[in-house]
Amino acid sequence: MTIHILGSGSATPTVTRNPTAQLLEVSGRYFLIDCGESCQISLLRKKIPLLKINHIFISHLHGDHWLGLPGLISSMHLAGRKLPLKLFCPAGMEQILQTIFSYSETQLQFEIEFSIHHPSEKKVIWENSDLEIFSFPLAHRIPCHGFLFNEKKRLRNIRREAVEVYNIPVEELINLKLGKDWIHPDGRIIDNRLLTKDPKPSSSYAYCSDTEFAPHLASYFPEVSVLYHEATFTEELIERAKLTYHSTAFQAGEIAYLAGAKQLLIGHFSSRYKDLNPFLLESQKKFANTCLIFDGFSLDF
Amino acid sequence: MTIHILGSGSATPTVTRNPTAQLLEVSGRYFLIDCGESCQISLLRKKIPLLKINHIFISHLHGDHWLGLPGLISSMHLAGRKLPLKLFCPAGMEQILQTIFSYSETQLQFEIEFSIHHPSEKKVIWENSDLEIFSFPLAHRIPCHGFLFNEKKRLRNIRREAVEVYNIPVEELINLKLGKDWIHPDGRIIDNRLLTKDPKPSSSYAYCSDTEFAPHLASYFPEVSVLYHEATFTEELIERAKLTYHSTAFQAGEIAYLAGAKQLLIGHFSSRYKDLNPFLLESQKKFANTCLIFDGFSLDF
Repeated sequence: MTIHILGSGSATPTVTRNPTAQLLEVSGRYFLIDCGESCQISLLRKKIPLLKINHIFISHLHGDHWLGLPGLISSMHLAGRKLPLKLFCPAGMEQILQTIFSYSETQLQFEIEFSIHHPSEKKVIWENSDLEIFSFPLAHRIPCHGFLFNEKKRLRNIRREAVEVYNIPVEELINLKLGKDWIHPDGRIIDNRLLTKDPKPSSSYAYCSDTEFAPHLASYFPEVSVLYHEATFTEELIERAKLTYHSTAFQAGEIAYLAGAKQLLIGHFSSRYKDLNPFLLESQKKFANTCLIFDGFSLDF
Repeated sequence: MTIHILGSGSATPTVTRNPTAQLLEVSGRYFLIDCGESCQISLLRKKIPLLKINHIFISHLHGDHWLGLPGLISSMHLAGRKLPLKLFCPAGMEQILQTIFSYSETQLQFEIEFSIHHPSEKKVIWENSDLEIFSFPLAHRIPCHGFLFNEKKRLRNIRREAVEVYNIPVEELINLKLGKDWIHPDGRIIDNRLLTKDPKPSSSYAYCSDTEFAPHLASYFPEVSVLYHEATFTEELIERAKLTYHSTAFQAGEIAYLAGAKQLLIGHFSSRYKDLNPFLLESQKKFANTCLIFDGFSLDF
């Protein structure tokens, strides 16, 4: 997996931080997660072809998480897109887009397949053979959901030399990849571990866009490889965080700790802060492996 | 007057050109003309305080001319704006904004005073003692209007030394500024030109956002100081220009020539062009004083 940060700011953008948008790359697929204003420009800067994005996930309907969407859709249309676009979003997104495109008299040349997600529990919203994507409720001022991208357990890797020694037929290889032992025609049982190697560990990415501190969230993404959690304020402004249904950097660190995450990314910093070092120090009190994100940041994991 | 170009691109933005947005500064007042996506970031880059903008003009409801507006309004709200905001816009803008802010459950702390402009002729839509602003119809795929900002004729400047020589009372000075002669108590008529100097010439700015070539437009802004006219294509793609209700650089030059403009700014270049020099050469065939605009460009006049 690779996560690309397209926008790391909060509701009020700054000259260096656009509103929230991220792109998760999984085996050549691009999943766009939130789409704040200027998202399409950030995609251009990262040289990511707009038409390679087929799945978009919108966490909630505060403008700083979706106002780049109509422009992005319009640019996809002008670039000749024909393939349907899957849009996982809250109820209301469809009416907003219809209103906008009806006044501009835009007839999109491709279909938008709306998938309304509003689970009250963690729930699979998309999957294929390699990946499953969950939505789960966050605790914000308006309905808001996080997302978990989980690579499914990979198949074991064949040890070609051992397979040749035992002369195992090709059609049996899938069973070896699934971890089964090989029963030789002479009755011997060959341990799977002699025939295969452990696969690369699976990765996972959890995204908590806008939420107040809610310790139960950690149970939605146990032992996640990388957790993104918003950190709009430092502890000094914890009252303001509560009032606006946002989190502090310390609280983001606590969620990462409770989840047993391997790495924590924090962002969505209020534009009032000029020095972001206090965010890092605060989060690291609870969770050492914290990273402050910025526009243009990418991470392979 | 000073014009600041915040976005000079067309429907599909590029890494160097945001969609259309311009800011006209007239004697300390800021008039925002169109507000494409990322407009608020361009304002931040230009260090223009968002709360100093009290008048916004939207030419039409294609997204590349207004999609930055909800984010800008939201940032004004978060910055504590209380003063009403005047929004000159096509019918439909109000419903779009209401839909967006109702789903985000945003209660703006200031009033938006909508002024719907859809004149079929040139018409004054705002004025004060120094300035009058006109709207006029353009010829585009959907209803679209241009704007003319006209400084009113300035008062003449008093020649202090002459006023002292004739001992003219203070309350009479306004008549001199208006160009009247002075009748001396002894009956002599003193020519106004002895008592006053010509004022600085008035400036004017005309804005033709998206339009097909329409020679009659020139009559809306005779002898304008600076004309902005879109130039989406070069003559090579004149058929595409007609089809999409846009203009070529040559046609923009022709409008400037017909209007007797002093200077022409062209922009809204299609993102397909890498080299923009042909736009300049083409426009200059009809109108020598042409300038290609870019994001960040400013001009005093």
